[in-house]
This record gives sequence, structure tokens and C-alpha cells, in this order.
Amino acid sequence: MRALVRDVEKEREFRPEPGVLTTDAAAIRDDPAIAVVAEVMGGIDPAGRHVLELLGAGKPVVTANKQLVAQRGAELFAAAAAAGVQLRFEASVCAAIPVIKVLREALVVSNVHRVLGIVNGTTNFILTEMERGATFEEALADAQRRGFAETDPTDDVSGADAAAKMAILATVAFGSRVTLADVDYRGVEGVTPLHLAAARELEMVVRLVGAATLVDGKLDVRVHPALVDRHHPLAAVEGAFNAVMLQGDAIREITLEGPGAGGIETASAVVADMVSIIGTTATGFLQNDACWRTLDRLPPGELRSPFYIHLEVDDRPGVLAHVARRLAAHDVSVARLIQVSVAGGAALHVVLHEAPQRAVDSALAEIVQLPEVHAPPSVMSIISDRGIVELGWA
Amino acid sequence: MRALVRDVEKEREFRPEPGVLTTDAAAIRDDPAIAVVAEVMGGIDPAGRHVLELLGAGKPVVTANKQLVAQRGAELFAAAAAAGVQLRFEASVCAAIPVIKVLREALVVSNVHRVLGIVNGTTNFILTEMERGATFEEALADAQRRGFAETDPTDDVSGADAAAKMAILATVAFGSRVTLADVDYRGVEGVTPLHLAAARELEMVVRLVGAATLVDGKLDVRVHPALVDRHHPLAAVEGAFNAVMLQGDAIREITLEGPGAGGIETASAVVADMVSIIGTTATGFLQNDACWRTLDRLPPGELRSPFYIHLEVDDRPGVLAHVARRLAAHDVSVARLIQVSVAGGAALHVVLHEAPQRAVDSALAEIVQLPEVHAPPSVMSIISDRGIVELGWA
Repeated sequence: MRALVRDVEKEREFRPEPGVLTTDAAAIRDDPAIAVVAEVMGGIDPAGRHVLELLGAGKPVVTANKQLVAQRGAELFAAAAAAGVQLRFEASVCAAIPVIKVLREALVVSNVHRVLGIVNGTTNFILTEMERGATFEEALADAQRRGFAETDPTDDVSGADAAAKMAILATVAFGSRVTLADVDYRGVEGVTPLHLAAARELEMVVRLVGAATLVDGKLDVRVHPALVDRHHPLAAVEGAFNAVMLQGDAIREITLEGPGAGGIETASAVVADMVSIIGTTATGFLQNDACWRTLDRLPPGELRSPFYIHLEVDDRPGVLAHVARRLAAHDVSVARLIQVSVAGGAALHVVLHEAPQRAVDSALAEIVQLPEVHAPPSVMSIISDRGIVELGWA
Repeated sequence: MRALVRDVEKEREFRPEPGVLTTDAAAIRDDPAIAVVAEVMGGIDPAGRHVLELLGAGKPVVTANKQLVAQRGAELFAAAAAAGVQLRFEASVCAAIPVIKVLREALVVSNVHRVLGIVNGTTNFILTEMERGATFEEALADAQRRGFAETDPTDDVSGADAAAKMAILATVAFGSRVTLADVDYRGVEGVTPLHLAAARELEMVVRLVGAATLVDGKLDVRVHPALVDRHHPLAAVEGAFNAVMLQGDAIREITLEGPGAGGIETASAVVADMVSIIGTTATGFLQNDACWRTLDRLPPGELRSPFYIHLEVDDRPGVLAHVARRLAAHDVSVARLIQVSVAGGAALHVVLHEAPQRAVDSALAEIVQLPEVHAPPSVMSIISDRGIVELGWA
């Protein structure tokens, strides 16, 4: 056993046996006694270079590196296939929650067409703390104090971390390469106490949801704050936990929930992958590149969803009619509308039946031009498997 | 491809190619072109005999038969090991929810010490319908009309079906053989609207919970109606869905939820197992008998849990003191007590801090003798990961 480190002499909590630590990557690559290597260094470089060299030398690799898999997957899997060795990556998405193994091995004949995920624990913690009354800044500071938000939390807060994970999940679920660059993402920066209050009013919660969807052979992958119906399994995910719901023809829906981060959790997934490699070495069956087809991206405007819109308007007769007329002109129909008085006017909470995003965007572009509308409106998808009408909103 | 049937001539929705159907089991067993066989006939006999013969002839087998695995697992896995072929059984527990694969392959180094499951869809449907006001009989009839309760629902309602599944899950999770005979089980027959009302009062729900627990190297497996805290992932499982929560050192807790029954769901799990067999044929690694040790059973009275007790008593001074004194004498402490007036007296809802079941039983045996106590009390375990004190019950 060998471990590549930057500094052999550094003080470590765990003192490995002499000779285990090395600063020479080639000593691992060229050691015939090493059957499998785990990459847990993180970052794109030099991690990517090491992984390519190991695969090229015929060593199977397990990686916990989501950015590496999401951004350079094609290259890495090609190298693994060329060398006839496996590259496994369970720990790169949601740590010990075994979504990759379940998708690739257990749901191999279930035709998964949608993956919904809460795949970033920091933002889920922030949102559930905000639900309890904390401000965004307080919740973020608390997450940092508890050690699950980085000192620089940009990747978490902006949705970039969740987007990399959704790129990997979409690739595996749909068998077509999705990279980080293919994922539209928005983070939680724009979520305000006002959204949380509206969610409560509608018996929903706000969550940062990753959604990968297959529509008529085209795929759409996005990460954005969404309203989730209280009875949806994703609404029950609290604090820093993660959950992924897989929807498919043969399985209806299967949801996996658990801690999506943590050192020992990640180690558990890495070791399980190493064991799986040993267990399938002779066949390598169902492993390596999950991609067996190339699917086009669905034009983003074509994705259909129920939506929620928040508008601030003048509190005078006729405003509602103006707004409703613009929506109707784009075939967008209102399922439910709540108007409340606020300082300087009225706030409208509008729940829309399922509609293509383009139609909602076009209607909103016109609504913003109305002189009685104050600020730019905010829009969120609604996640509900019961349908808007069943929610009693008809 | 061949399929063993009772009657080749029977009208079938799906018409297989000529020569596929046979009434001769040996024709399958002795066909060298058949690499793997799926047993989906159900029942102990002749299914068990066929599986043994197939394994003996060197054919790997996939089975969806929970009673067969739960009652005759030792014999079947011994035959598989002797022949050097695999026996996989994912579909025998919760259909397409891949609990077995996750336990055996993904959580292989996570030291699972507790498995909590809602593993019978019929009873979960009945309980959630009763929550909405239906009677037990109405809910059962509805389940039968929808096709997920059998005409003879005894195995579901009595807990026997859930017990077989928990025996299998405990075997795989703890690596020690647990058979149906080792599982204490109670069904939902004793659950009344009164329990459901008490649950609501306590911000809990009633669920038929299977619990397999490892305590100081001894195991306890049981199925019983329990009160589940509303914030616990199992409380969110509604209707005919199943869920299994796995708790372990390296993973904290991972919950898998989905439909636990259904023809196509079961087929999905069976085919995935067949594919996994092909993928690991050369090594057979981590498969066949999950048992690598023999653990003793924990004496049932030693299992610790928070409990809920319901008592009907005379509504006069001193009753509470009498009850409390009996509990205290057995070191059982009260976390919360609600007294309400009912026809002919008072009902006491008592929430107890964690205590050994034996202590609670002993205290109750004395309490029943009190002249002011009317009917036999009912007792339920409480499932909550937050601790009774954190529930604000101190």
C-alpha cells in the first residue's frame, strides 16, 4: 500500500507504516503489487493528470472528484476503456449515498427518465435554517462553524457544486455525456424571506433542486431554487442531508436519502468502489463509460413545469386583469392567486399550471413593462407529483 | 430461453415463441445454453426443490421468493456455495428498491447496526387511510380493490410478510442467519382510531415498523406497530410505498424509498440481478451467503426504546400517582403525560424515556392490577432520532 502526499514529513493524526507515504506518483503507478488506486486529492490538476497516467498504466482507479468527472469525464473514461480497466466514481456524488451503483447496476433495465436531487448539503442547511427564521448570512456562518461549508462557499452557494453532481447523475442516468458546461444553474443567493413565506402559504418549501429530465429523446439538466410540495419526498430532506429521486418506467420512483458529504462517508463509498472493482475485474461488466448514445439538449425554453411567480404591483383596480391578460395571451393559465398588501402596494403570489418555460418568460417580459409593476418579478419551478389540481388549486 | 409453466396451452397475454414454454423442469436444468435462471413461482414448495436442483446442476439462480429465502436460506446458500454459483434475491425484499445490493456492495465497510423498515405496502396503505378517517375494514377493502392486498390478506395484516423481509434484511445487514422463526412480529389488527388520535396529539404517526438491531454483538429483529416522529424519514412514507433506513458507523443513515411491490418493479429487480450475476461470474465476489458469523439473539426484554403507553383509568384523584409510582419502581421515567376525559373515566397517554422493554412490561403488569385501571393497556415503541428530550418533552 502506498499513498501519494505533498510532504512525507508533515504531522499526521494517523501515522502510516514507514514506506507507505511517497511524493513520487510513478512509485504508485509502476508498483505491480498495487491492484487499484483511489484518487481523493480533489481539483482538476494535477489530479486529472495522475488519474490518466494510472489508467494508462493499467491501474483501475476510484475517484471522489466530482469536478474532474463532470468536466473531463469523456477523456478519463476513454483512457480507462483503452486500457481495459475500470474507473469508478460513486463518492463523487453525494458521498456514501450509492446513487451511481443503484443507477448503473440496480436500475439497469428501468429506463430512468428523470432525476431530481437535493445534492448540496450546505445550501439545503441554509434554506432549512432560513425557514426557521435565520437570515442567509446567519445560516451560512452557522454552516461554516459546523464545518460543512467551505471558507469560500462560492461553489456551494452559486449552485456550481450541485451542477457538477447533476452533470454526473444525468450522464449515468441517460447514457449520454453531460458536462458541467451543459448544466444551467442558479444558486440560493436570490432566495429571500419573502419566498420562504410564500412557500409556507402554499404548503411548500424552498429547496435548491437539481433536475435532469429526458423529454422526447432530448435532455435538460438544471439546478435552481424551486418550490417543493410538502408531501413530496424531497420536501422532507432537512439540514445538510442530500436526497436523489430517480423516476423511471419500471420503478415509478425510488428516493435515496442520507448525508451527502463527510470524510468517513466519502471513504465508505471509495472503499466500496474498490471492492466492486475487485469483484468485477474479470468482466468489467456495466462499468466504465456509462455513455452509449449522444442525446441533444432540449432547448431550455421548451421544458414544461408548473411555476410560481411573485410580483409587486400598485394596489389599485385593474392590475390583476392586466397581469392575467398577459399570461393568457401566452396560453399560461393561473391555478391559484394570492394577493396581499405590502408597504407601497400589493404582492401577488401566482401559481401557474404546467407550461413551457418560454411561454412563462415571454408573458413575464410583457408584465414587467406594465407601469403598475414595481420590481422585476421572481419565478420558481414547482416540484409536485400530485399535480396542481389535486393540490386543491383548481 | 425457456420458461417452466404448469400449463403450456393456457391463454396468455404475452405469447412466447414456440418451444419456450415447458412443463419439464429438467429441460431447463440440463440445457447448457441457459446461463442463469429466475425463480418467480413463489411458495416454498416446489419452488425450493427447483432452486436446489438448479443450483446443484451449476446454474446461478435469481429468486423473488421472500418466504423461501427467509425460511430455507441456509440450505439454499449452502447448495449455491457447494456448486460455486450465485444465488441472488434482490426482488425478495421491497421489489425494485435495491436494498440488498446497497447493503452488500455499497455499504460493505460501513458497519450497519440498525435497519428500520416499512416493508409492507398493504399495511402502510391501511394505516395512512385510517389517518385520513377510514376504518380498518374500509381501508383493507380499498387496498384489495386497488390490487395490492391479496384476497386473503392474513400475511400482510399479521406482519408475517414484513417479518420474512426483515429476516432477510437482518441476515444481510449483520452477516448472521436470521430466519422467519427468529422474528417477533405483531401486525396492525390491534391499531385503533384511538392510537391514531394519540399519535396526532404527540406529532407522530403510527406505522408498522420492522426493526433489526445489533446491540453489543447480539441481534434483535421484530415487526410491530410503532409511533414514528413526524420528522423521521419513515414518517413521510405514505400509501403503499416502502422505505428502509440503514444506520451505520460510516454512513450515519441512508434511507431508500419507493414502491415495494408490483409486477414490473419486481421484474426490474430480477433482471438487474441476472445482469449482476453475468457481471461478476468470474469472481462471484461478495455474493452467495452473506453470513460470516453466528450472532446470538438479544433476549427480547433487553431491547431499549422510548415507549408510549395508553391506559384507561377511573377519573379520580390518586390514579396518576399510583401509575407513576409503579413506573418509577422499575426505573422507568415519564417524559410526557397527557390526560383526557373519556366516557366512564380518563385516558392517559404516557410517553416514556428510553428503557428496557422488560422494565416497561414489569411496570405494566403491576399497573394492570390496579383497581382503577380499566382495560389492558396498549404499548408501542417510539421511533425518533431526535431523542425524547429534544422533542420538547423533558
